[in-house]
Amino acid sequence: MTIDLDRGVTAPAGFAAAGVAAGLKTTGAPDVALVVNRGPRFDTAGVFTSNRFFAAPVGWSRQAVEDGRLVAVVLNSGGANACTGAPGREDAARTAYWAAELLGCPAKDVAVCSTGLIGQRLPMAKLEAGLRSAHAALSPDGGRAAATAIMTTDTRAKEAAWADPAGWTVGGMAKGAGMLAPGLATMLVVLTTDAVVESADLSAALWSATDVSFNRADSDGCMSTNDSVLFLASGASGLSPDPGDFAAALTAVCVCLAQQLIADAEGAEHEIAVKVSQAASEEDAVEVARAVARSNLFKCAVAGRDPNWGRVLAAVGTTQAAFDPDRLDVAFNGVLVFAAGAPGADRADVDLTGRQVDVGICLHAGGHEAVVWTNDLTHGYVSENADYSS
Amino acid sequence: MTIDLDRGVTAPAGFAAAGVAAGLKTTGAPDVALVVNRGPRFDTAGVFTSNRFFAAPVGWSRQAVEDGRLVAVVLNSGGANACTGAPGREDAARTAYWAAELLGCPAKDVAVCSTGLIGQRLPMAKLEAGLRSAHAALSPDGGRAAATAIMTTDTRAKEAAWADPAGWTVGGMAKGAGMLAPGLATMLVVLTTDAVVESADLSAALWSATDVSFNRADSDGCMSTNDSVLFLASGASGLSPDPGDFAAALTAVCVCLAQQLIADAEGAEHEIAVKVSQAASEEDAVEVARAVARSNLFKCAVAGRDPNWGRVLAAVGTTQAAFDPDRLDVAFNGVLVFAAGAPGADRADVDLTGRQVDVGICLHAGGHEAVVWTNDLTHGYVSENADYSS
Repeated sequence: MTIDLDRGVTAPAGFAAAGVAAGLKTTGAPDVALVVNRGPRFDTAGVFTSNRFFAAPVGWSRQAVEDGRLVAVVLNSGGANACTGAPGREDAARTAYWAAELLGCPAKDVAVCSTGLIGQRLPMAKLEAGLRSAHAALSPDGGRAAATAIMTTDTRAKEAAWADPAGWTVGGMAKGAGMLAPGLATMLVVLTTDAVVESADLSAALWSATDVSFNRADSDGCMSTNDSVLFLASGASGLSPDPGDFAAALTAVCVCLAQQLIADAEGAEHEIAVKVSQAASEEDAVEVARAVARSNLFKCAVAGRDPNWGRVLAAVGTTQAAFDPDRLDVAFNGVLVFAAGAPGADRADVDLTGRQVDVGICLHAGGHEAVVWTNDLTHGYVSENADYSS
Repeated sequence: MTIDLDRGVTAPAGFAAAGVAAGLKTTGAPDVALVVNRGPRFDTAGVFTSNRFFAAPVGWSRQAVEDGRLVAVVLNSGGANACTGAPGREDAARTAYWAAELLGCPAKDVAVCSTGLIGQRLPMAKLEAGLRSAHAALSPDGGRAAATAIMTTDTRAKEAAWADPAGWTVGGMAKGAGMLAPGLATMLVVLTTDAVVESADLSAALWSATDVSFNRADSDGCMSTNDSVLFLASGASGLSPDPGDFAAALTAVCVCLAQQLIADAEGAEHEIAVKVSQAASEEDAVEVARAVARSNLFKCAVAGRDPNWGRVLAAVGTTQAAFDPDRLDVAFNGVLVFAAGAPGADRADVDLTGRQVDVGICLHAGGHEAVVWTNDLTHGYVSENADYSS
């Protein structure tokens, strides 16, 4: 049982997908994707941004999944349809109606996801034509094409699939390279499975998997208006998995996708895992890890290949977590640079030339732990975000 | 009554100061400062970082001001004496004892402030020699020399003074260019006055002035281990000011120093004032302003001279403040780019070529307002913080 990075939403049985170029992006790159559940079951669950300026498609999709039934997801890059008011809400609804007509299902069984610039209407004629092309191109091998069509500043498509030896599969695709954040990331994720799982159980599994994956990928602390995670279950395997096995598989797929998001974050030169151990509670561990992951000074230090434990401590010291400052340890890539509240090994012993950086913080306050993933803060990040209007 | 930017801690009567080069900095620049209250009164108050990894001098000074009496402050750049354990605490105490001996007062009447690299012991022999030189150089005109000796990555000394027509004066100096933050900044501030004010009243005035000045200067959201604001009152004017007038003067001096800190923040190309109006409460206004001031995406956009209201909304949307998304307004430098929940004036109408950027956010939810000052996020910030070990 390993994760397959070359298969995504069409890895499970019962799904078809497509991705086409509809001219929403000025580059001519693919920009419209369609994922369709062929059944026999249509259970669904969703998690959406908690941003109060949620985009029109988020409002639509949140309602669409409420009854636990979903047939398809239409996704577009090249425009976020956010802060577009009532006309934008109509555009999102219209998109769902068009897809529903093509698929022969109610519009309320179609979710819509958009990503791109904020504050501009989508070119609806192009989107409609693209949707028709995507429908015509639907294929049980279309997962990669769909994953490609949702990319914005992503440099590569992101897929993951877990084929359980018992015979059921979980697959997924994701896009996002900018505003990865706690409440969720600028991030569109579609997850699929051919297992037989009721929508209530799907929802519970999705929330707990999201909590330890996407919600702990904190690239720059910014939360987008469009973040959506949709989960569709076809039941096509005919198998009802053990809930623990299913949760583990889903979590593995989500963590793998979250790590791909971090690895492809805008301008990043290092992927950083902030690992807090021996915390009094998981909340404490997450609070400490997130405080470090959000410190611009710490992130700049990693960009400069400096194992700057002083900046780690300055961030840790802002939290309310239980710990004794005189007992705390900090390690960079396994080298204990701060031990029991005092300077430890020489910073020169730490090698930060590789892309992977592990920062270990031991609180000596209990038995809980957590990991938050983030990136370094680089010139590339500034360039990309000073020049890109979103 | 205007603020004088060329006079600082020695503007009020009863104070002497000095700044000397003691070799703590490898550059040979001044690095030891001394500020002495000559009386007749010695009332004092202090505000310190809430970081749990507070530096040794913070621990010492917090205790020193507790009895409301302080005679002198010793400050050094070139070393933070933070995360240095028990030996570092002894160094801070020894510094106070040396100064007390020179001045003929108890050590508990001397505060100590340090700034510079974390995790390294101070060169105590050099510091002692520097302290003796500073004592020998004490002068009622020494304010600028002291303000210069506490600079680290600051590009200029920061002073402010308010001479009230009634005959009393408030003066101050500050250093800090990096970790300006909510709980306080990497920031050393010494404030002085020749007014007759009891320490309890001094403390109340200091807390309320700090709350609307240094605590709202949020350069990069990072809180330092060494932040200290000390306030000394000599009573040398013999005048007891009206409490309202005194609070206004102190606040004006603190706001002026806070703005100088923001204007000199590492690598910044724009000073940004995030002004939230018509909030249901001051807390709401501060929460919204701080969320925007902390958004790396927003700060990069300003660096790129892009009046990106979408990133402002994405930050505002993460708060719990009372507002209706469909009524909110956003203005850049007075141009209403987002009005009543919909795109407003053309972005091209906004000119962000100047250093001063005003972002106005009107919540239409009440009668409260607040301003938080921050900077843009630039290549200069990344360069300075990727290369500088602190």
